[in-house]
Amino acid sequence: MRIITISREFGSGGRELGKRVAELLGFAYYDKEIVSAIARERDLDEAYVQGVVDKGARSYPITIGRSFAYPAYLQQSTTNILVAQQKIITALAQKEDCVVMGQSADVFLQKHNPFNLFVYADMPSKLKRCRERAPEEERLSDRSMIKKIKEVDAARAKSREVLSGLRWGQKESYHLCVNTTGVNIKTLAPHVAEYARFWLGIEKP
Amino acid sequence: MRIITISREFGSGGRELGKRVAELLGFAYYDKEIVSAIARERDLDEAYVQGVVDKGARSYPITIGRSFAYPAYLQQSTTNILVAQQKIITALAQKEDCVVMGQSADVFLQKHNPFNLFVYADMPSKLKRCRERAPEEERLSDRSMIKKIKEVDAARAKSREVLSGLRWGQKESYHLCVNTTGVNIKTLAPHVAEYARFWLGIEKP
Repeated sequence: MRIITISREFGSGGRELGKRVAELLGFAYYDKEIVSAIARERDLDEAYVQGVVDKGARSYPITIGRSFAYPAYLQQSTTNILVAQQKIITALAQKEDCVVMGQSADVFLQKHNPFNLFVYADMPSKLKRCRERAPEEERLSDRSMIKKIKEVDAARAKSREVLSGLRWGQKESYHLCVNTTGVNIKTLAPHVAEYARFWLGIEKP
Repeated sequence: MRIITISREFGSGGRELGKRVAELLGFAYYDKEIVSAIARERDLDEAYVQGVVDKGARSYPITIGRSFAYPAYLQQSTTNILVAQQKIITALAQKEDCVVMGQSADVFLQKHNPFNLFVYADMPSKLKRCRERAPEEERLSDRSMIKKIKEVDAARAKSREVLSGLRWGQKESYHLCVNTTGVNIKTLAPHVAEYARFWLGIEKP
């Protein structure tokens, strides 16, 4: 199986990029929402999750757009969920070619030789993307938004370090680091997809 | 003028990559040897250098392959040469589309909106590339070679920080960071050229 993992700064457009790359390459796309949901279900009913895994996660509803708050169950038993997520990510990744968004998948899936991408941008650019993405009524001040961006990234960094001892966002951990400052994600996606295709040794169709 | 600057870790294959990208895009290629030589000549004979700049550096002999030791004149008057180099890099970059290798060109040419590439690799990979490149009689032990790689990179980092206050090798300074570990530079080059073409807004020929 060919695996692309994507780590990204909040507001860098990494999630949109990941979805587009998956679509361009015909890969499955997994992100936190899907895997969390499966992990939760798994705790409740193993057979059901197996069914989801077997059918492929593409049939599972995907939350499009901005991130949502952590559901209560994640706060209740983070470790259980993490363990379940790791198992599920590994199972999914062995099932079909896929793009896995976040979740330290580059660490979990290391032995499967994934192509690891990091997506980043400067703060004005991230601020702009967050503004465009947020609904009118939820708009924060610049200051609050920058605080949120930094908090989300700090949490990602911490979670990765706890899991792996490796530093999040350090270029040595990734095969390609893409700066999306001033770049349109839709026009960028084919070029990143092309690079991933090259790296993974996929022949052009 | 479209400008690509390349910063790279010693042994990462960045120089070969830069030459190939320049060739693929039909850009001029400038590196330390060329610019140092021009700067030296400039100290001696301004008109001659102007001639070289006007004719384009492609007519100037290029040292292929591994780096050579700093010539004596560079040690004698580093500041003069640095100032001259900066002037010459700026002049060359305004003359024609080009790839500029090293020399903190991303800092010098910032206002010309260059595409800034950083090339890196893990130590075993850099060691392997250095071995393949060095003639039999000049082979160092692994330990000495690693020491040399670290020294060259430390000098690059220092020179950049003195000039700009910016950290060398920190991904935020670059538009794309490419990890060449386990990657063949010749097959990589078209993909990096394609990405640069996209970023610089060059239509396909």
